[in-house]
Amino acid sequence: MSGAFASLWRSRAAAAAITRHVVPAQLPLPCTAARRGLHAPSSPAAASAASAATAAAPSTAKPPTGVLLLNMGGPADQDEVYPFLFRLFSDHDLIPLPFQKRLAPWIARRRTPSIKQQYAQMGGGSPIRHWTERQGQLLCAELDRVHPATAPHKPYVAFRYAQPLSEVALEQMKRDGVRRAVALSCYPQYSCSTTGSSLNELHKQLMQIDPAGDIAWQCIDRWPTHPGLVEAFAQHVEKALEAVPEAERANVPILFSAHSLPMTVVNRGDPYPQEVAATVHAVMARLQFRNPYRLVWQSQVGPQPWLGPQTADSITGYGKQGQKHLLLVPIAFVSDHIETLYELDVENQHLAAEAGVTLHRAESLNDSPVFIDALVDLVRGRLAQPAQPAHHQLGLRCPQCTNPKCAETKAFFQSSGPCTSSESTL
Amino acid sequence: MSGAFASLWRSRAAAAAITRHVVPAQLPLPCTAARRGLHAPSSPAAASAASAATAAAPSTAKPPTGVLLLNMGGPADQDEVYPFLFRLFSDHDLIPLPFQKRLAPWIARRRTPSIKQQYAQMGGGSPIRHWTERQGQLLCAELDRVHPATAPHKPYVAFRYAQPLSEVALEQMKRDGVRRAVALSCYPQYSCSTTGSSLNELHKQLMQIDPAGDIAWQCIDRWPTHPGLVEAFAQHVEKALEAVPEAERANVPILFSAHSLPMTVVNRGDPYPQEVAATVHAVMARLQFRNPYRLVWQSQVGPQPWLGPQTADSITGYGKQGQKHLLLVPIAFVSDHIETLYELDVENQHLAAEAGVTLHRAESLNDSPVFIDALVDLVRGRLAQPAQPAHHQLGLRCPQCTNPKCAETKAFFQSSGPCTSSESTL
Repeated sequence: MSGAFASLWRSRAAAAAITRHVVPAQLPLPCTAARRGLHAPSSPAAASAASAATAAAPSTAKPPTGVLLLNMGGPADQDEVYPFLFRLFSDHDLIPLPFQKRLAPWIARRRTPSIKQQYAQMGGGSPIRHWTERQGQLLCAELDRVHPATAPHKPYVAFRYAQPLSEVALEQMKRDGVRRAVALSCYPQYSCSTTGSSLNELHKQLMQIDPAGDIAWQCIDRWPTHPGLVEAFAQHVEKALEAVPEAERANVPILFSAHSLPMTVVNRGDPYPQEVAATVHAVMARLQFRNPYRLVWQSQVGPQPWLGPQTADSITGYGKQGQKHLLLVPIAFVSDHIETLYELDVENQHLAAEAGVTLHRAESLNDSPVFIDALVDLVRGRLAQPAQPAHHQLGLRCPQCTNPKCAETKAFFQSSGPCTSSESTL
Repeated sequence: MSGAFASLWRSRAAAAAITRHVVPAQLPLPCTAARRGLHAPSSPAAASAASAATAAAPSTAKPPTGVLLLNMGGPADQDEVYPFLFRLFSDHDLIPLPFQKRLAPWIARRRTPSIKQQYAQMGGGSPIRHWTERQGQLLCAELDRVHPATAPHKPYVAFRYAQPLSEVALEQMKRDGVRRAVALSCYPQYSCSTTGSSLNELHKQLMQIDPAGDIAWQCIDRWPTHPGLVEAFAQHVEKALEAVPEAERANVPILFSAHSLPMTVVNRGDPYPQEVAATVHAVMARLQFRNPYRLVWQSQVGPQPWLGPQTADSITGYGKQGQKHLLLVPIAFVSDHIETLYELDVENQHLAAEAGVTLHRAESLNDSPVFIDALVDLVRGRLAQPAQPAHHQLGLRCPQCTNPKCAETKAFFQSSGPCTSSESTL
């Protein structure tokens, strides 16, 4: 992967402009449905949906390869805060609550005013849709250039708690006649609470919207140490450190901050803490361990125990120890959102000022060219290996998992790839 | 490091036998004490100890470079079980207890009978002294060959809870006239409970036994992703997987099992979970992620919350999910000890049998030639950089650390290296 990425990077740097090459290529064979035994829709409603979708598919132009970016989403404006929170607290994969259907609207209503205020302080709404759409556009434009065999590529966005939701994206894909798609999780590290929840929802909606399995799926569910991701983080760290006086620069502790998880999720066996740690280590290795560092965890809510040390406590603690500069690096989200723009940039800045610490922050990756190239490399790599629908690790449930949706989703995405030539002859 | 290690590995493989090259080299200048302002012993007792040590030092032969292997140790026989447990429960860095001086002997007495039984089932005592001494001997013999500038190298062992304790090792080093030494933690990943506790104890004893700072120290406190360590683990995994029928081999979940930590330690900011995760990721990358895997945590004791998922629960959980084979890999200790030979091989085998799982176990590294070469590469690398006494990361305390010993120890080992030529002219 590393070599391929470096080569892609060089070729991208050399290219004066992004050009589209819509080169005809063999369509992926629709064998996925046959392999899954899904010859017929499972219900009249599904049959109707499938029929409508088929009728709407263009019959002459080459359909695009879909690249579906999965992310949590965020409210675009103040009016969307409540629906966003309602969906979030209704997600049993994220927050399993007793009496969830009744509790979710109650908690969402209770939290809406304070969250509205937080969004107001960061400009009114979340920029996550802007960044995710831009990432998808840049990614697909470049994919057309470097992987013409599957061009044209068309980006879609499926948010878990805001528009566009999975069903909206999938219905658009059906209208566009997509037959082959890659689901790309925008979370570099896999958690059942993030990527897992998004894949469960995508699978649920697929069973409704594409019951015949017309779309052959591949999946990129984790990429914690992709060299392009690591390079992008490292460059942002280096840039942020430039703001520190040179004599003090090498001694500034770097705090890699990731969204925490409840200990119930950690103890169930969620792979996220291990994968976040791997990202941190890879970035520090790229930086030659020039600075001391810690992995810390943010955004704990509620009275239950969560994984620590907490970011806020760490800032205060290092202030007490006499540290004068700290560098925060958001390491588990790739776009700006409320956890960076409010929690790190407003709340933590306030804490740091009280603790006598100058708090620096590495910029989020957003549309960093190095980061976009990493996405291109990831998707190109997956498309070039049609016999590998997903990472081997996706198939293993958590040791204490009791969620039947996980078993079904994992089985689906591990067997849903486009046919290889040998398979197509079966 | 990777290239140097590969080259060392090739040269070792080519060598027909280990030969000693005692090549005279310039002695390290005793500038450490001057740099620390420690011109005179701080107490009469210390002065007497220092004087005795100096008197015992050989004056003509070139003194050896000391390589001090730090580890926890274990009872060599049944009679040593109580003293071992007493020291363990007396260690405030490991287990902070109220009224520790009274509680430690009480808990140790209470636990002695059951722990004696466990050791009885693994042959009577712990093999950790055998393995650590053997590692030190093989390491120093090879160091003499590949790094003659600092030869001869002499291994010493400092256990935290069993003989030989730090003071025994240090007194022997003084008698041998050692002027330059490397403290090598046998724990690849740094925890305040293991390496941190050993370094605190070493520092404390040094202030008594070598108050004038005659010995210039370098320190290897963490090496979680050293390529030789990763290679050794990967080879042991591959070998263990050979016992699984070939058709099922690629689907066997690998459970990397590390000693857990209480959540109070994790939440204080102990770097161990992050570094263990980095080792796991590096080993899986070397294995090209061919198998699914999880990082799990063993040896939880007491009622307080510890980091999970627990190894035992994971075996049971995967049994319920229908897994037929599991491979356990001890990933945070490098020698066999009670946690591998009893907990994994007796207790967990019993659990697995009940869960219908065939439990495989990767051998501990012990005296694996690849592993010994990794140690050689580590120490050689540190000796070749006298201006770098320790890893940059050692200096950063945990964000919630309130242990003054840690601050003193870290400062000592970050400034205790042998002089560089430029420093010696100051």
